Amino acid sequence: MSLKAIFLNCTLKKSPETSNTSAFIKQAERIFTDLEVETEEIRVIDHNIKFGNTSNEGEGDDWPQILKKIKESDIMILATPIWRGDRSAVAKLVAERFDGIWSEADEETGQYPTFNKVGGVMVDGNEDGAKKAISSICFDLSEHGFTIPVNAFSYYVGKAGPGPAYIEAKGDRHFFTNRNLYHMVHNLVHVAKVLKEKPYQTNVNELKKQAEKVSDTDK
Amino acid sequence: MSLKAIFLNCTLKKSPETSNTSAFIKQAERIFTDLEVETEEIRVIDHNIKFGNTSNEGEGDDWPQILKKIKESDIMILATPIWRGDRSAVAKLVAERFDGIWSEADEETGQYPTFNKVGGVMVDGNEDGAKKAISSICFDLSEHGFTIPVNAFSYYVGKAGPGPAYIEAKGDRHFFTNRNLYHMVHNLVHVAKVLKEKPYQTNVNELKKQAEKVSDTDK
Amino acid sequence: MSLKAIFLNCTLKKSPETSNTSAFIKQAERIFTDLEVETEEIRVIDHNIKFGNTSNEGEGDDWPQILKKIKESDIMILATPIWRGDRSAVAKLVAERFDGIWSEADEETGQYPTFNKVGGVMVDGNEDGAKKAISSICFDLSEHGFTIPVNAFSYYVGKAGPGPAYIEAKGDRHFFTNRNLYHMVHNLVHVAKVLKEKPYQTNVNELKKQAEKVSDTDK
Amino acid sequence: MSLKAIFLNCTLKKSPETSNTSAFIKQAERIFTDLEVETEEIRVIDHNIKFGNTSNEGEGDDWPQILKKIKESDIMILATPIWRGDRSAVAKLVAERFDGIWSEADEETGQYPTFNKVGGVMVDGNEDGAKKAISSICFDLSEHGFTIPVNAFSYYVGKAGPGPAYIEAKGDRHFFTNRNLYHMVHNLVHVAKVLKEKPYQTNVNELKKQAEKVSDTDK
Repeated sequence: MSLKAIFLNCTLKKSPETSNTSAFIKQAERIFTDLEVETEEIRVIDHNIKFGNTSNEGEGDDWPQILKKIKESDIMILATPIWRGDRSAVAKLVAERFDGIWSEADEETGQYPTFNKVGGVMVDGNEDGAKKAISSICFDLSEHGFTIPVNAFSYYVGKAGPGPAYIEAKGDRHFFTNRNLYHMVHNLVHVAKVLKEKPYQTNVNELKKQAEKVSDTDK
Repeated sequence: MSLKAIFLNCTLKKSPETSNTSAFIKQAERIFTDLEVETEEIRVIDHNIKFGNTSNEGEGDDWPQILKKIKESDIMILATPIWRGDRSAVAKLVAERFDGIWSEADEETGQYPTFNKVGGVMVDGNEDGAKKAISSICFDLSEHGFTIPVNAFSYYVGKAGPGPAYIEAKGDRHFFTNRNLYHMVHNLVHVAKVLKEKPYQTNVNELKKQAEKVSDTDK
Repeated sequence: MSLKAIFLNCTLKKSPETSNTSAFIKQAERIFTDLEVETEEIRVIDHNIKFGNTSNEGEGDDWPQILKKIKESDIMILATPIWRGDRSAVAKLVAERFDGIWSEADEETGQYPTFNKVGGVMVDGNEDGAKKAISSICFDLSEHGFTIPVNAFSYYVGKAGPGPAYIEAKGDRHFFTNRNLYHMVHNLVHVAKVLKEKPYQTNVNELKKQAEKVSDTDK
Repeated sequence: MSLKAIFLNCTLKKSPETSNTSAFIKQAERIFTDLEVETEEIRVIDHNIKFGNTSNEGEGDDWPQILKKIKESDIMILATPIWRGDRSAVAKLVAERFDGIWSEADEETGQYPTFNKVGGVMVDGNEDGAKKAISSICFDLSEHGFTIPVNAFSYYVGKAGPGPAYIEAKGDRHFFTNRNLYHMVHNLVHVAKVLKEKPYQTNVNELKKQAEKVSDTDK
């Protein structure tokens, strides 16, 4: 079974500036390659992604191209640096654009194009904030149609205060971070395979009707 | 295939006080029953759950009994009221006790007893705070061994400020909340079934060794 | 004593699109006007604010002009709509740009230009997420040099799910939101006045030296 | 001017177990002592604090005694260890009990007993989670009547993953953490003094009436 994993790198730094998040992603890509999963990294800020909540915010908006690539993948990993103890503004922008997915539901089943894909999270920073970022992103992934496996994340952070980031700190040699990367990748691949074989049977449109029956029509 | 779903009700109110969270759980139970899934609700505060981070905090601690029931279930739903815009202190206490699961790993595979179970979240409050609670709980579920399906949550909240809670506000007739409940239950059941047929092959112990090879031994 | 309050409106919508957050701000401005405080609203997205962590991200960056206006004010209120149960991506971008303030410290005292200013938060959404946004912004305000009074925030949110936002929902007639606005404005003005009379005596440079004495030089 | 600072230590460990949070508090106490501020540490878990949302949850509840001490202090610092990337369950329990303060308002002014007190936050963990905890606690402090100075917090965290906590990691020699402690203490003392001289003039009852005038009576 051939699988593809896509990484959205939500660094604040445009290419060709060095991105610690990109170095972290490379570490994950090696593990995917071992499992014969094709990978691709998209550095979001190199594209013109408009603020908004739809899948297409009009002329000059590059989100539709990125979304197309996500739809062609089986696994999506949101990778963000930490700023202010939280995911980056670029990662938040991406989360907001994903709301558009609900308008692209299948006419018959009501499933969004992301159903049966799996999602993971990678966070790196010089210090504190990884778990807050992961938490918010897990919520987004689930609501946006992704399934989240066991230990679907990895992160690197250093001691309190300013300090070396992933590359300089040799995060690629940090055992805890690497162990979590192995878990994340193997679990993502397992669930991606399983959902290809046994996709969700949920008929979102049908469930909507059932919910309407037991609810008041006015909010 | 016979499945069991367990709800941990993290209300602050001991029985027989009325719990809005319990009323919300009853609504979910009806949908599980339609799908022939057995259910059980545990009101955590009725038991003596000690503060701590292990699976057994000594004499008088009731957590081991609750954990036993979780292990016997296929689906676990953490249900919490909102206090201070966040999950309840009881829900946080439960999250902390779950850290003990890592010490109960299978000797051979290293998988925790929760692997191949699925997790969901239900949150109710008179106002604001559901998504913060859901986010934190999704992170916990994934790290504690659960798989999180698409739309693995439902919540009820009212307008800003003091106001009626789930029962008085007729949350059981609120369309958005009910629709999400249907999604949650159907998706939980799908993934629970799929993981029973196709359980994780991840050998946690083996991956640990691989991670060690590419990491420095000293932290 | 003459005071000025500045609002940063972090809506995702460019002028002249209708902004619910702007309508909410107008409600607060009326109360400031009663107290003879001058006000100004800046709709951040109408300006070209680059991603980054400094006070000036180079050619075409409009942040320096906004920062100049903040420095000329006594009170700053961050006003954000809710998206994904959290502050907007624009609000996060603003938070990240504020990190530049630490590089503009007074040579002698080490105080940043924001010392002795006070900060508040306003959040509006059709549903859930206000308190998560307020929490993150309070942390930012304190670290970025602002003092936060009692009840330094107000918010409007409606019931769970899609629904009318501030304007359509008549948030301007919602008692809880209005009462909090009155508290916020009166408390902000009190602390702003008090800090004008009794500014912080903290010598940041001096405290740094004291901290160095009791710390190891290498991190 | 004589001031008193009280620390609520929200460790999960009962005395006489070693508490890293307690060691961290001792470091702050030294700085307060330099400024001639009296200090007291309360280890919350050594007392019987019931779950709930009032100032007195009935027989056997020790919260009233702690609340009395808080009322007699000018400065309160919430100190919590990190568990699950967030404040401890004990810290959440304390936050919930503080909701009772609103029922103890002054008849004439409507101010709660905490008005004119200042609040700070201290967080320690072996890794990630400090800023999430600080954010939530800042929100609580402001809503519960406290004023939050500039840099009103300090924290210690180590690298990602299990590792030494404050004492073993020599957090007491960590420059960033110590510098923040100095800032926090000096700023808390400044604002505490200033509010003693110039207390809030806010008449909460009066503002409530003004808000009612511009609001619809039914929610």
